[in-house]
Amino acid sequence: MDNQRGERMTAPLSFDLITTEGAARRGTLHTAHGTAETPAFMATATAATIKALRPEDARAAGAEIAICNTYHLMLRPGGPRLEALGGLHRFMNWPGPIVTDSGGFQVMSLAKLRDLTEDGVTFRSHLDGSLHHLTPESAANLQRMFDSDIAMCLDECTPYPSSWEKTADSMRRSMRWAERARRAFTPRPGYGQFGIVQGGIDPELRRESAEKLLGIGFEGYGIGGLAVGEGQAAMFEVLDSTVPLLPINRPRYLMGVGRPSDIVGAVVRGVDLFDCVMPTRSGRTGQAFIPQGTLNIRNAVHAEDPAPLDEACTCPTCTSASRAYVHHLFRCNEILGPMLLTAHNTHFYQTLMRDLRAALDEKRLGAFVAAFHERQTTA
Amino acid sequence: MDNQRGERMTAPLSFDLITTEGAARRGTLHTAHGTAETPAFMATATAATIKALRPEDARAAGAEIAICNTYHLMLRPGGPRLEALGGLHRFMNWPGPIVTDSGGFQVMSLAKLRDLTEDGVTFRSHLDGSLHHLTPESAANLQRMFDSDIAMCLDECTPYPSSWEKTADSMRRSMRWAERARRAFTPRPGYGQFGIVQGGIDPELRRESAEKLLGIGFEGYGIGGLAVGEGQAAMFEVLDSTVPLLPINRPRYLMGVGRPSDIVGAVVRGVDLFDCVMPTRSGRTGQAFIPQGTLNIRNAVHAEDPAPLDEACTCPTCTSASRAYVHHLFRCNEILGPMLLTAHNTHFYQTLMRDLRAALDEKRLGAFVAAFHERQTTA
Repeated sequence: MDNQRGERMTAPLSFDLITTEGAARRGTLHTAHGTAETPAFMATATAATIKALRPEDARAAGAEIAICNTYHLMLRPGGPRLEALGGLHRFMNWPGPIVTDSGGFQVMSLAKLRDLTEDGVTFRSHLDGSLHHLTPESAANLQRMFDSDIAMCLDECTPYPSSWEKTADSMRRSMRWAERARRAFTPRPGYGQFGIVQGGIDPELRRESAEKLLGIGFEGYGIGGLAVGEGQAAMFEVLDSTVPLLPINRPRYLMGVGRPSDIVGAVVRGVDLFDCVMPTRSGRTGQAFIPQGTLNIRNAVHAEDPAPLDEACTCPTCTSASRAYVHHLFRCNEILGPMLLTAHNTHFYQTLMRDLRAALDEKRLGAFVAAFHERQTTA
Repeated sequence: MDNQRGERMTAPLSFDLITTEGAARRGTLHTAHGTAETPAFMATATAATIKALRPEDARAAGAEIAICNTYHLMLRPGGPRLEALGGLHRFMNWPGPIVTDSGGFQVMSLAKLRDLTEDGVTFRSHLDGSLHHLTPESAANLQRMFDSDIAMCLDECTPYPSSWEKTADSMRRSMRWAERARRAFTPRPGYGQFGIVQGGIDPELRRESAEKLLGIGFEGYGIGGLAVGEGQAAMFEVLDSTVPLLPINRPRYLMGVGRPSDIVGAVVRGVDLFDCVMPTRSGRTGQAFIPQGTLNIRNAVHAEDPAPLDEACTCPTCTSASRAYVHHLFRCNEILGPMLLTAHNTHFYQTLMRDLRAALDEKRLGAFVAAFHERQTTA
């Protein structure tokens, strides 16, 4: 198999570490569908679409890697249908690397009648009530049908807060599932599978989980079960204790995170990959990310403001639309409002990642982070 | 004032007739904000936005002229606010010519508690119930605040069917309103005002209306009150009797029309300008225009179809997405579905107009029309 550059790939996906600054890392991820520079924020395309944004516009904003969800895709369009259509890349017009989450988190948050056993999880679709069964093996098999470059193992996202016993039980089952998922994974050149570290906010459980996954061996490691209500300080403590346990030559993906300040703090702590619905969901509800924090464009104060969302922003929205216009679109429930704001927020997040990468390249991450916090006044 | 080409404009907007074939005309409209080749289908931007489409994408598809609505814009964002923000062109990022309908039709179809008197129409906003009064003079004044290149006179869109007496009374009041609208219009270089021919499907009332408007004298003429249920044959009969009454050196605009076959038939009968919600509204409800007619992408038959909406189409949707993918997006209620289908339908309509113009340029409209009808199998 050749990758996008025409290079012959014979090994699983790989990760080149370019430089470091403290715990922070600057790297390049190589996959069957091309590369992604890290630290990277992935375009969130849960149901094989970035909501309210064309994929080419996300790429123009700087996104190189996208993430979809096994739970959503197994229900619609379904694994066999997606395989028959040539896989996710062709289906959603995303030629670059694609990660698929296993769906464990979404089964817990979206599906009804969940029966969690050692074998897997049985649930009713939130769409039509139909009954489905997801196991570590079937999740791996579905992700092969999707043709995702990076398949996340099926895990249970431990509810927060949970007792130590429940957190430990949940994590240990996820680790047994990770063993099964690895056995069900078919290695292909340029593809890989990530294990997911669980264990709540307990450092020893996190250590046990990380050691278990390293014993199995994956092409990369997710850090799951965070940004679920524990707060930024607790999340950073988990990263401080967990990230150093992970191998230096494998990518680290902090799942479902987060706000810009979360991302900056996690990059400082050595995380390489991120995803979050925040830029796109905020784009649909009227919240714009700006260097000072956020603003709600529905606020009447913007009704007569001829300035763009952010004077310094070079995105297609800020170079063509005033705050007054975007305000008008949201007041009128016009689809162009979410479209323009999602484009801006995506550009904001991708610019943050580009700036973080540039700071790492130039060994000035510390100064960048100080300036980042200096700017933040509203969030 | 200079137009977009840097030409000094001293006269009102003008219309150059390039060539004709039978009654059909190929022309160029010159306005304060640039030119539009005709026959033209205007981008429908009722509330200062083409629904689910960025203006630059409509322009890339070939749209040169847009139309907004006074009724919608007087309620939100309002005339004074729009004037303070620099007018419609800057507000909605549409540098080209803009027409504004007067809102008469929309008052009748959308607003509540309509009190129609000789002075004007009093209505409650469909948004918040607030009371508003619209007169021929205030509609002209609002359109000046909007800075629209072409202002349509306030008229009453006669309901269909109506008795001869009601149709005559309604038309004659619209003609008295047209006199008042013209007196309230401030001529500016490159700008113009269109009168609107009414009179239902009665040829004599249409003649009376056209003669009255020609006596007043406008920069162009709308043909209103059609496509309201009378059927295509009756509409074409009205055009056959009415269009020849209009001056050859003024643009003719068939308001709110229509399906592709309506447009082709009206171009043959000498119409220059069109607008209709059909390509955008259909794009949001899952209907795609194709050379054979239309298809409903929600239909299960498309769920596994790897082909684009139209194999021969060069639009951004057809060059990147399968029917299966667009079907998936609509099944999932994803915003990208309406975005992709609106882009395709807009491209379809603009391509139809481009092809009509090319056929006229090359004196082969008759053959083009025959081939057009030959292709249509589903609509």
